[in-house]
Amino acid sequence: MKISSLQTARLEYVPKLPKMLKNGITQIAVKEGSETKSVSDYEKIKELFPNTYGKKEVVFKKGKNTSTDKKQVVGVILSGGQAPGGHNVICGLYDALKSTNPENELYGFKGGPGGLLKDNFIIFDDEYINQFRNTGGFDILGSDRTKLETEEQFSIVTDVCKKHNINAIVIIGGDDSNTNAALLAEYFAANKTGIQVIGCPKTIDGDLKNEDIECSFGFDTATKTYSELIGNIQRDANSAKKYWHFIKVMGRSASHIALECALQTQPNICLISEEIANKKMSISEIADYICDSVVSRSEKNMNFGVVIIPEGVVEFVPEFSMLISQINELLAFKKADEFNKLSTWDEKYEFIVNGLTKEAVDVFNILPRNIQQQLFFERDPHGNVQVSLIESEKLFSAVVAQKLEERRKSGLYNGKFSVLHHFLGYEGRCAFPSNFDADYCYSLGYNAFVLIQYGYNGYLSKISNLSSSAINWIAGGMPITKMMNIERRHGKDKPVIKKALVDLNGNAFKYFKEHREKWAIETSYVYPGAIQYYGPSKVCDNTTITLALEKGSFD
Amino acid sequence: MKISSLQTARLEYVPKLPKMLKNGITQIAVKEGSETKSVSDYEKIKELFPNTYGKKEVVFKKGKNTSTDKKQVVGVILSGGQAPGGHNVICGLYDALKSTNPENELYGFKGGPGGLLKDNFIIFDDEYINQFRNTGGFDILGSDRTKLETEEQFSIVTDVCKKHNINAIVIIGGDDSNTNAALLAEYFAANKTGIQVIGCPKTIDGDLKNEDIECSFGFDTATKTYSELIGNIQRDANSAKKYWHFIKVMGRSASHIALECALQTQPNICLISEEIANKKMSISEIADYICDSVVSRSEKNMNFGVVIIPEGVVEFVPEFSMLISQINELLAFKKADEFNKLSTWDEKYEFIVNGLTKEAVDVFNILPRNIQQQLFFERDPHGNVQVSLIESEKLFSAVVAQKLEERRKSGLYNGKFSVLHHFLGYEGRCAFPSNFDADYCYSLGYNAFVLIQYGYNGYLSKISNLSSSAINWIAGGMPITKMMNIERRHGKDKPVIKKALVDLNGNAFKYFKEHREKWAIETSYVYPGAIQYYGPSKVCDNTTITLALEKGSFD
Repeated sequence: MKISSLQTARLEYVPKLPKMLKNGITQIAVKEGSETKSVSDYEKIKELFPNTYGKKEVVFKKGKNTSTDKKQVVGVILSGGQAPGGHNVICGLYDALKSTNPENELYGFKGGPGGLLKDNFIIFDDEYINQFRNTGGFDILGSDRTKLETEEQFSIVTDVCKKHNINAIVIIGGDDSNTNAALLAEYFAANKTGIQVIGCPKTIDGDLKNEDIECSFGFDTATKTYSELIGNIQRDANSAKKYWHFIKVMGRSASHIALECALQTQPNICLISEEIANKKMSISEIADYICDSVVSRSEKNMNFGVVIIPEGVVEFVPEFSMLISQINELLAFKKADEFNKLSTWDEKYEFIVNGLTKEAVDVFNILPRNIQQQLFFERDPHGNVQVSLIESEKLFSAVVAQKLEERRKSGLYNGKFSVLHHFLGYEGRCAFPSNFDADYCYSLGYNAFVLIQYGYNGYLSKISNLSSSAINWIAGGMPITKMMNIERRHGKDKPVIKKALVDLNGNAFKYFKEHREKWAIETSYVYPGAIQYYGPSKVCDNTTITLALEKGSFD
Repeated sequence: MKISSLQTARLEYVPKLPKMLKNGITQIAVKEGSETKSVSDYEKIKELFPNTYGKKEVVFKKGKNTSTDKKQVVGVILSGGQAPGGHNVICGLYDALKSTNPENELYGFKGGPGGLLKDNFIIFDDEYINQFRNTGGFDILGSDRTKLETEEQFSIVTDVCKKHNINAIVIIGGDDSNTNAALLAEYFAANKTGIQVIGCPKTIDGDLKNEDIECSFGFDTATKTYSELIGNIQRDANSAKKYWHFIKVMGRSASHIALECALQTQPNICLISEEIANKKMSISEIADYICDSVVSRSEKNMNFGVVIIPEGVVEFVPEFSMLISQINELLAFKKADEFNKLSTWDEKYEFIVNGLTKEAVDVFNILPRNIQQQLFFERDPHGNVQVSLIESEKLFSAVVAQKLEERRKSGLYNGKFSVLHHFLGYEGRCAFPSNFDADYCYSLGYNAFVLIQYGYNGYLSKISNLSSSAINWIAGGMPITKMMNIERRHGKDKPVIKKALVDLNGNAFKYFKEHREKWAIETSYVYPGAIQYYGPSKVCDNTTITLALEKGSFD
């Protein structure tokens, strides 16, 4: 098996642990804080989690380990989309487990939550795990998107655990997976199984974040990888001076990735979905906003630029959501067949336009024809428009192009507008974790085991003070129920971890807002370059700008 | 002006020079070799270059500098597409020039050859140039694609040079630009202007390569950047286990980039245009070749994979070229209007099919409808199909999908085939140059000045023995005419530098061929990770695998 020279070198990297964890497992004492309560909907959450609600916050400190000495058998799963550092969570968990007692065992369930239900497992040993240290990807186990949420599933999980004498499960996942981890923990407690559940906060999207969780792992590496590429594209734009690049970046429900990339690279434009929703902006207004930058720059003979677009942006445009829901209704059930039978676009167009309200038709008519058609190419099994397949980068560049031609006719624009499109997503989810993510993930995993050893259930592994050096990080745990509220999902009230959208009053967005007018007109590009794992600390140990701004440590 | 922490660190990097150049300008002596002749068409080339043909090869060595002491005023341009390291060529040139005589001057013409014709210049000084050391991009001057090839242009260039007392021009460009550099050198010599021309071999495509030029600069960094991303995508594929990724990489006329990326990452499939042309493969055969891998892998429950496609591949498929030329003929002049007036695709389809030969119709019918339509969306001013706009990655995945369905019906395939598409190009042309490119480019520029100082004209700056450490590189010069032959271009015989296609008998392709069957069926992915500028030498100083294989130093 051939491996790259970087991978060979990274296998030797020793992740940094916070000082309270780095003296060996016998020197970790626990300190409990006060009892916790959920972010809101206290009563309802408490009712739903009678056995796991209200537990105390936990912090580890240097001191004699007072946990019970017993053989631990732990199971671990990776849940959902890939994020750099997942392998290191498992390595940290494994190392803490084995150094506590060589008889301890770590089961890995292959293929995510689905694999846990199928009892598809391996038992980790040094030889297997050592191949994955400090590497990207989730290939150590694989993953899937099965949701563990029903009593029936929980009962199967209990059987699987009992079969192997597993006394704790670690779930590495995003907000939904950790919500389900809390439900599973409650089930285990209610049924007196004696099995514990610990979650670890994963997602490149950065939307699993709150008072306790400063950032989810993977966000650092993914945004640095995208920023490397955006910087390179900006340098190309500024060299060739002839293209506008419309770059869509991953992040469907929140724009943290787009915002962080903008902070790192200083593009001409970056759309923030949360702001668009807040201001109830229309497609036309968004396009005009971009046009203003194109026109200003063309007046200085700069017919080039870069626009960053968050993947989910169209879903945040109120009029667009309205259009989509009308189309979904129009083409529901049998009407879809009727539509599909129409052979020419003109006939289909007429059918659509006759079935929509005037407001919806107006929005539909703003869209360029290829985007209009795209709305009907592929629909999901219920006949719904697949919003995630809409190429929003092409949508906006096309509307911008139309508007520029109108301005040209009015004598308000005299430039050139040639566009190139990019989508950055899969390029960053499995990169080698940055030193930050390598250290953070290893600490999360190591810490998860200490929580297990001390008998906690329904906790999220919590490492904080992340904008400081790793040695100063604070390790501990927080009951997952503390991060929950009740939200309406699919017509039902559900207890869920509150998803973190971009805070329009937060420091990160504020900094962006203060600078973006200058960036829109001038060429203020910053070129971050590739992630460095070696070299000057300023180059290889820096955090995201979002985190630095949020923690007040940005200079 | 904010710059990234990597850029700050890279400004301090001191590029390595070959030992024969590193003792200071006073310690560089020259050794002339034997007279040269062109690769073929000796008589014709000699006739076209009476003043610059047959000159001697030059190698520098440590020794007393015997060049004439005179003030040098040099002009430099960047020509054509961006390649990482262009800034360092200029930095090396500047440093050699200033260390020889602080009175020497370096003019940079802005916006490429077009800027030289317009006399749009800056004069370099320390403050300006120091911002660009070891950075990517061509933004130090900009570039364009103007071809300097007519007597009229040469006369303007002469005037510009005389105006500023410029006695030498350095042209940093690809094969066409250096062909034109040779023509300009001959013009200068024939007209006894006393002005010299030195070329530097640039292009990420890697097709400016021959007996003398081991590789063009930028190829190393660009292929490492693409390989980083392909590796990341492979790791994602191997983690999620549900997608086939079809990745198109830059390189229209040669497949060096695709081949190097394949050597670095070991994907399941990599198409090589030169082999396809050599074997006269049809689209259907190529798709079947990919299908075989998809089917074999699906039998082992691996419904995922990675296919690398060189940008220009369709132009190398004989039947596709035939189709395109028939379409171009069919839609020439007035017939295009007739075609454009047809309102439905069915009418257009009938028009097309009636106008093509049976062979062409058969090829056209293999294509999925969206690709059929794409051929007609945008045509160039002459009404020709724009082959470069054809999304070949989507073309092949669509044909593969069709064929898989046929195999499924015959019971020969029972897998899932979900595809994602990528195009990697602009992400890599302006990356921070790798240490290799930073050193190589600086040496090329430094060396170019030594050639000027010694009075050479019509030479390419030549640094060889590149698979060894920089200290052992050999610095010298080679008459550009030596690399020339006569080719038919636009119906005329022209002297040009012979473009290097992938050599199907060369070591690089051979290695690929020996391993690809295994790679197609197994998962042998290698994950190179991001370019490292610091750290272990094995990680940050390695060359491309192509170069190592060609020079016999691959282990």
